[in-house]
Amino acid sequence: MQSEREVLEQMKRLIEPGSIAIVGASDQISKVGGTITHNLITSDYHGKVYLVNPKKDTIYGRRVYKSVLDIEDEVDLVEIVVPAPQVPQVLEEAGRKGVKGAVIISSGFSEVGNFELQEQVYNIGRKYGMRLIGPNCFGIVNTGIGLDLTFTFTRATKGNISFISQSGAMCCGALDWAALNEVGFAKFINLGNKVDVDEADVLVYLKNDEQTKVIAMYIEGFKNGRHFYEVAREVCKVKPVIALKAGFSEAGSRASRSHTGSLSGSDQVISAAFKQAGIIRVYDIEALLESAVVFAEQPPPEGSNVAIVSNAGGLGVMTADWLSSLGFNIPVLSSEVQSRIKSSILDIGSPVNPIDMTGAADYNSYYNVIRALMEEPSIHLIVPIYVSQGLVTSDIPARAVVDVLKEYEKTTLSFWVGGASIMEGRMILRRNRVPCFSSAERLAKAAKAMYDYTVFRRRREEDDCN
Amino acid sequence: MQSEREVLEQMKRLIEPGSIAIVGASDQISKVGGTITHNLITSDYHGKVYLVNPKKDTIYGRRVYKSVLDIEDEVDLVEIVVPAPQVPQVLEEAGRKGVKGAVIISSGFSEVGNFELQEQVYNIGRKYGMRLIGPNCFGIVNTGIGLDLTFTFTRATKGNISFISQSGAMCCGALDWAALNEVGFAKFINLGNKVDVDEADVLVYLKNDEQTKVIAMYIEGFKNGRHFYEVAREVCKVKPVIALKAGFSEAGSRASRSHTGSLSGSDQVISAAFKQAGIIRVYDIEALLESAVVFAEQPPPEGSNVAIVSNAGGLGVMTADWLSSLGFNIPVLSSEVQSRIKSSILDIGSPVNPIDMTGAADYNSYYNVIRALMEEPSIHLIVPIYVSQGLVTSDIPARAVVDVLKEYEKTTLSFWVGGASIMEGRMILRRNRVPCFSSAERLAKAAKAMYDYTVFRRRREEDDCN
Repeated sequence: MQSEREVLEQMKRLIEPGSIAIVGASDQISKVGGTITHNLITSDYHGKVYLVNPKKDTIYGRRVYKSVLDIEDEVDLVEIVVPAPQVPQVLEEAGRKGVKGAVIISSGFSEVGNFELQEQVYNIGRKYGMRLIGPNCFGIVNTGIGLDLTFTFTRATKGNISFISQSGAMCCGALDWAALNEVGFAKFINLGNKVDVDEADVLVYLKNDEQTKVIAMYIEGFKNGRHFYEVAREVCKVKPVIALKAGFSEAGSRASRSHTGSLSGSDQVISAAFKQAGIIRVYDIEALLESAVVFAEQPPPEGSNVAIVSNAGGLGVMTADWLSSLGFNIPVLSSEVQSRIKSSILDIGSPVNPIDMTGAADYNSYYNVIRALMEEPSIHLIVPIYVSQGLVTSDIPARAVVDVLKEYEKTTLSFWVGGASIMEGRMILRRNRVPCFSSAERLAKAAKAMYDYTVFRRRREEDDCN
Repeated sequence: MQSEREVLEQMKRLIEPGSIAIVGASDQISKVGGTITHNLITSDYHGKVYLVNPKKDTIYGRRVYKSVLDIEDEVDLVEIVVPAPQVPQVLEEAGRKGVKGAVIISSGFSEVGNFELQEQVYNIGRKYGMRLIGPNCFGIVNTGIGLDLTFTFTRATKGNISFISQSGAMCCGALDWAALNEVGFAKFINLGNKVDVDEADVLVYLKNDEQTKVIAMYIEGFKNGRHFYEVAREVCKVKPVIALKAGFSEAGSRASRSHTGSLSGSDQVISAAFKQAGIIRVYDIEALLESAVVFAEQPPPEGSNVAIVSNAGGLGVMTADWLSSLGFNIPVLSSEVQSRIKSSILDIGSPVNPIDMTGAADYNSYYNVIRALMEEPSIHLIVPIYVSQGLVTSDIPARAVVDVLKEYEKTTLSFWVGGASIMEGRMILRRNRVPCFSSAERLAKAAKAMYDYTVFRRRREEDDCN
């Protein structure tokens, strides 16, 4: 087994390359190689880019090389987009050139039963000490250096979430979802068939990556579960890791085996290992993405006391129900805080908790009440709720929440109910990094994941002290 | 206690009035009375509309009456939008005029502690045999006759869901959500303080309403739980009833008491009663709306066998996990069906179940595979899944699903993953009444609610036969 330091260095060369050669470059956007070429040269990447294609002289006016071996300068990474049978030769040439990393986009390996060809690729990588991502993958993104090595049509924007997925389809879905929801990524890595680089290798890199605040993973199976566990355990001490591991049902694991050809392992063992390592396990793609956003945008709550502030009594009650059922307290507020709140809401409202500000709640009500809660040390999580009732438009309470958060820091998760009329409020919250839910259940579950992480880290810190 | 027949006749006059007088009519759209007047006269309602306001002579060129008593013709319903202290007099006049129903929008009654005034209103209603909705309510909608008696800015469109809510805020949220998601309503009733008409009365009406396919309720508390249970029990035999009853946690019920002034009752008792009556209980506003849509648009599955058809293996596995965990079977398909499927998908796909058609799946793959599943009698529920992978746009599989459903009928719930690039497909599905989820968990829970209802109805039919 390599040392963490070695792995980190290798991964850095793969994910932060100073120079890249695309083998199979093309100017035909309808081809995968064409999309990749186009995505890379139109991205913000400032490193050297070399295009390789034996059948072309120029692409977009740039010089095209016949082989990697013809490139005069050093190359950190080759991205390979040639038919599968040609991959070994291209890799050989890259190895001889001294390239230390490759992203193999080409498909036609173990996923179609061609284990022999994949083995051959593996051996060439070993021979030259080259780390390989793929084959049969969608590519990688590093927004930290403006690098886009994928064939997506939906470009990832800059953010703090790093996403690792075995499945390319899941990458497409995640990027598409993220673009619509204005969610950005730090690193975005599709591992494909995992001939060499696996989740554990990438985790080592992401643990040390400053841009990454939270790691979201979609996992189908493990090459080396024990090693993954050991690495993940260390990473979870430093930043939250959320994982979606499908295939826990009999039908699901039957399909999972046929899909990836890999054994998915006993689900109970996986759950126990995830828990011990500190990995937050989710069971749905929506939950994976939503909880990643929450961790990226808000600090985990330092305790389990919640204050709920709503302009509709029923929504406050519903949210209190969900949060209570997941272990949070919704304490009666002190008489001091209650009297501060009373001065900002109508008499028919309730300052107890959940706070019912009634439909008349305006900017001042939201602003003053939330500020009072920010200043109350016994409250660890604030949940502002809004439903449009025609009087106060959705942007107004959103601005109040955002304005308070300019001066104070405390975990804040919002819940805006409705359709078109809450769009503006949602956008204001989102752009100011306040997660905005459309469901009390999902809000409560995200809050629970965050608080579980707080508890996990405290326990781990205590363990380390003892 | 009145007979069901009597209640039905009274409710018909309230919800299907032939003539209406708005007392407190106005041409100032900024006032509640103005919005109500505007909404009613611009709605598709073909009955007679009389405007009453002692301070006006004409509104929008129409004659304005000083009092309901001045109207020459019969009036079925008065809608009252005057300050609370004036409500008793207006009601008295309506009673003397022989009006048998009133919707009281005005607030300032029990919700602000003014129980005496509410009692007075109640007594006038009793004296004249007048049924009263409200006070402190948002109004009612009957799209069946184009009637809009609310002060909403988001008009309800025609559909098969009837919505009953005690809370006006919840009505606003639901209408706003429905407009964005192109979901229509049959009847939309806000009960407000429930001085007289309550959920049970409306249920009697909706049970007999042909336009209503499913009933969604938001309940804060009961006036007469026993009576509600008995009525609901009969309604559930005929059509599904979904209810969100908030306030199950200690903090939630504390707030619920303060919010509505009514005792919310022991939650365990409520859960047991709901179950026995056949009411489908949900715990989130999103779940209430989404499951109502599912019941309105698709027939409940006749059994628990599901076939999953995906263009991404992992999404099929995830969905199989969720459905399995809620009691569905995902059976291995017969070799006959498998061979039919095989001819429409790539060799690297899997025809077993969940069916993995791979990212190459096009219109023909979706169409042929779903048709084969429609023709397989052992399958009761079909779940088509799609994630955009750049090759086949989201409208293509949506059209395939819709086209198969033109010829066949079997419960179909879809799961489209992504953001902007799946919008078109979602819209096609939605407009053709195929529910489209963005989460495997929520899809599975909606499927479960539907199947539970199938089981409940079968048992009830057996009971009735014995």
